[in-house]
Amino acid sequence: MAFTLDLNCDMGESYGAWRMGHDKEIMPFISSANIACGFHAGDPATMRETVAFAIDHGVAIGAHPGLPDLQGFGRRFMQITEQQAYDMTVVQIGALAAVASSQGARLNHVKAHGMLYNMAAKDRAIARGLARAVKDVDSSLVYFGLAGSIMIEEAQALGLRTANEVFGDRSYQPDGTLTPRNMPGAMITSLDQSIEQIIRMVKEKIIVAQDGSKVSVQADTLCLHGDQPDAVPFAKAIRQALKEAGVEIKHL
Amino acid sequence: MAFTLDLNCDMGESYGAWRMGHDKEIMPFISSANIACGFHAGDPATMRETVAFAIDHGVAIGAHPGLPDLQGFGRRFMQITEQQAYDMTVVQIGALAAVASSQGARLNHVKAHGMLYNMAAKDRAIARGLARAVKDVDSSLVYFGLAGSIMIEEAQALGLRTANEVFGDRSYQPDGTLTPRNMPGAMITSLDQSIEQIIRMVKEKIIVAQDGSKVSVQADTLCLHGDQPDAVPFAKAIRQALKEAGVEIKHL
Amino acid sequence: MAFTLDLNCDMGESYGAWRMGHDKEIMPFISSANIACGFHAGDPATMRETVAFAIDHGVAIGAHPGLPDLQGFGRRFMQITEQQAYDMTVVQIGALAAVASSQGARLNHVKAHGMLYNMAAKDRAIARGLARAVKDVDSSLVYFGLAGSIMIEEAQALGLRTANEVFGDRSYQPDGTLTPRNMPGAMITSLDQSIEQIIRMVKEKIIVAQDGSKVSVQADTLCLHGDQPDAVPFAKAIRQALKEAGVEIKHL
Amino acid sequence: MAFTLDLNCDMGESYGAWRMGHDKEIMPFISSANIACGFHAGDPATMRETVAFAIDHGVAIGAHPGLPDLQGFGRRFMQITEQQAYDMTVVQIGALAAVASSQGARLNHVKAHGMLYNMAAKDRAIARGLARAVKDVDSSLVYFGLAGSIMIEEAQALGLRTANEVFGDRSYQPDGTLTPRNMPGAMITSLDQSIEQIIRMVKEKIIVAQDGSKVSVQADTLCLHGDQPDAVPFAKAIRQALKEAGVEIKHL
Repeated sequence: MAFTLDLNCDMGESYGAWRMGHDKEIMPFISSANIACGFHAGDPATMRETVAFAIDHGVAIGAHPGLPDLQGFGRRFMQITEQQAYDMTVVQIGALAAVASSQGARLNHVKAHGMLYNMAAKDRAIARGLARAVKDVDSSLVYFGLAGSIMIEEAQALGLRTANEVFGDRSYQPDGTLTPRNMPGAMITSLDQSIEQIIRMVKEKIIVAQDGSKVSVQADTLCLHGDQPDAVPFAKAIRQALKEAGVEIKHL
Repeated sequence: MAFTLDLNCDMGESYGAWRMGHDKEIMPFISSANIACGFHAGDPATMRETVAFAIDHGVAIGAHPGLPDLQGFGRRFMQITEQQAYDMTVVQIGALAAVASSQGARLNHVKAHGMLYNMAAKDRAIARGLARAVKDVDSSLVYFGLAGSIMIEEAQALGLRTANEVFGDRSYQPDGTLTPRNMPGAMITSLDQSIEQIIRMVKEKIIVAQDGSKVSVQADTLCLHGDQPDAVPFAKAIRQALKEAGVEIKHL
Repeated sequence: MAFTLDLNCDMGESYGAWRMGHDKEIMPFISSANIACGFHAGDPATMRETVAFAIDHGVAIGAHPGLPDLQGFGRRFMQITEQQAYDMTVVQIGALAAVASSQGARLNHVKAHGMLYNMAAKDRAIARGLARAVKDVDSSLVYFGLAGSIMIEEAQALGLRTANEVFGDRSYQPDGTLTPRNMPGAMITSLDQSIEQIIRMVKEKIIVAQDGSKVSVQADTLCLHGDQPDAVPFAKAIRQALKEAGVEIKHL
Repeated sequence: MAFTLDLNCDMGESYGAWRMGHDKEIMPFISSANIACGFHAGDPATMRETVAFAIDHGVAIGAHPGLPDLQGFGRRFMQITEQQAYDMTVVQIGALAAVASSQGARLNHVKAHGMLYNMAAKDRAIARGLARAVKDVDSSLVYFGLAGSIMIEEAQALGLRTANEVFGDRSYQPDGTLTPRNMPGAMITSLDQSIEQIIRMVKEKIIVAQDGSKVSVQADTLCLHGDQPDAVPFAKAIRQALKEAGVEIKHL
């Protein structure tokens, strides 16, 4: 029996003269790039260059829509309606889809950015707004959401293909949710521990929660954080460990 | 022999809480709507509502990309490269195309807004940037440009379908260009004179320039200005006059 | 014994080519103008013109800082920290203060806009951020806040001069808060009833709440809504009624 | 006889999550900081932090107003009127002045950013718009302009104190203008040559132009480029060389 896992990373989050992330160094290690679409980051030139770079590396291209908050990098909660979530997702998917098709490529997936992702994982109206947008623009796109969350439920209810996203650098609670960042032990800083969690999620389909209990999980895609200081060696090590464990890395 | 003419108008130029134009009143009279895409005007909700309204009226949907200058409404010259013109056009077309496809419709054409249009009519690099963007995103789109200008030349050189745009409320020079707005007689304020110019452009394929000389012209689409105080009665009168003259109004 | 009341109204909320409000018609009836500072509305030219117009009418000039959300007109809740509330208020006050001083005038007051005002009325950290900003930039400015709210408390704790703001077109609850807009009877649409409420607040220092109970109130300034369809006749009628009741209209 | 020179550098050009420049490393070597005001760069938090950092180092605080073009970092030409140049300068000076006064400090100078500076050096209307804005907001501010240019002329005509700005890393033409960047030899990459030019400008009040001719110059302030890769060692070396040459570094 073969195991596979997608490795995704946020990309193209520069803006004008400002640089962000380690796109050049990370791209060779991933299978899916979530590319910013101009609302929280990503100007038109950056979008073009990032799509071209993903094509060069055979990496799947995804839209990475965010809240309309450049100054807050899409990380601040904003009170929006389902309709607003829908509208902002439609235009951002469309913008990146055009950049892809102008280069002879096409979109593979959609993953919401930062606070928009967090909101969708907790608020069913936002989750539905995002999923409806994906379906209405292009129902063949893969919808990335927090593993086992209402994001996945809402997308599946609309008949979308989904990818359950898991994290190697975050600990989990007994109910399968991520430990909030402001709680002790939320971040996994040990590379070995991180790799162990990832391999187990893929091969055994379980997570060992903070209290030691085992939680079942579907791990389709792993989120790599490209803006961390040690993002590059981390990505490299994960990739090597997955290979050694017989897990094939490929996009969905 | 049958005569036809497309009537186009800029639409969807509201932004957030701010209203602009007379979309509701003008839409029934036109055959093509150029819908703002978020850079000079047009937020995601306005884009959705305007596309829906165009569909209701059987009006062809076009992208109306502009310069990234909300404060200046895309009417201030900005020094951009061909590549920047290309990039901003790609993402704006894509954004509106997604709004259209999310409603089961599709884009028909692209017409640049304000200063971006003016720049493309004079600067071959900008004209080429726009035309390449249209071609690379969707080569079936109709490219609207100033009749007989380098916009049309560059688009045709790439094999695009083009629409030569003419004006009923502007006078022309002997070389076929528009009289600059800061010169006497640039604007035609008489409705009768305006209608006469339009009918002649369509049926006789000529314009009578300011000096009385006759200039040949190809009139595929007529620009109606929706933000003028008398836009609605003007649109109504033009439409009536064209009907009476046996000119069919339909999109390209 | 003499009664006085300030009449304030939001002004200068146009942006670029987009118009908003009835500044020209309302200015003659008010004593304090709250002028947008560029974050939720108000470009530099609009700020200059509105300040000049207030000076012409002898109306007190106030800064009207808002959330950095043009697309949402500063009406959408955003999760910001006290420090962020402080920072955005400092720069917005400064921007308008410079516009005033460039015309030989000076700021009189500060009133937060829309959701920033609502947040400050409920969240003590935001209220404190605003009040600290006012104090640190210019401690002689009058701080406008919801009558009897934590906005007033926090400003007074810092030694600022405050203006308790009341509403003539909103009903109140027995605890002195405004009836939420989504509840029945929140808006007072009868002009007579509105005037009665205003006169009573000024002369008797009480409000009759929705349940008939009497609540004591300090009414320093009355908010007029300039973007309502009947804003102008309403302002005129209020002004006339106050005069007849012997209430002098003047800024603080 | 004592020689003095001001060393200025653009600072606070980060925006939200995006970092720019080497503010921390450069601040100890300069005497004047030109701090971005939010139009081309510089969010409210960055403005506050940068002002605080300048105060810590005893560095003079200046406003650094730019064109309203975040995506282009204020480096793209935009066609603006004298009035627009005036308006955008007023509000940007005001914003930074408030940040300074909220920290018990005050503005010392104004230096336009990027393309706005370049436009003012060539276009008398823009130069006048900037100078009028400085005068009307606070006539005690020092106006920084290209040495010997119309910027200085217009500011002096209004009675403003001016600082003639010179460059150590740029070569000059026989008429005293900078060699355009797209011409050979525009940039001086040799540190020794750069230092020689600077010392000569200060002590002998001359520049040796590209053709070997000598041009007289008034050098009040030297521009250091903080975003260059070798900005820090360059600043350090300049500072050391000036000391050894007996030139005191201090703000105006």
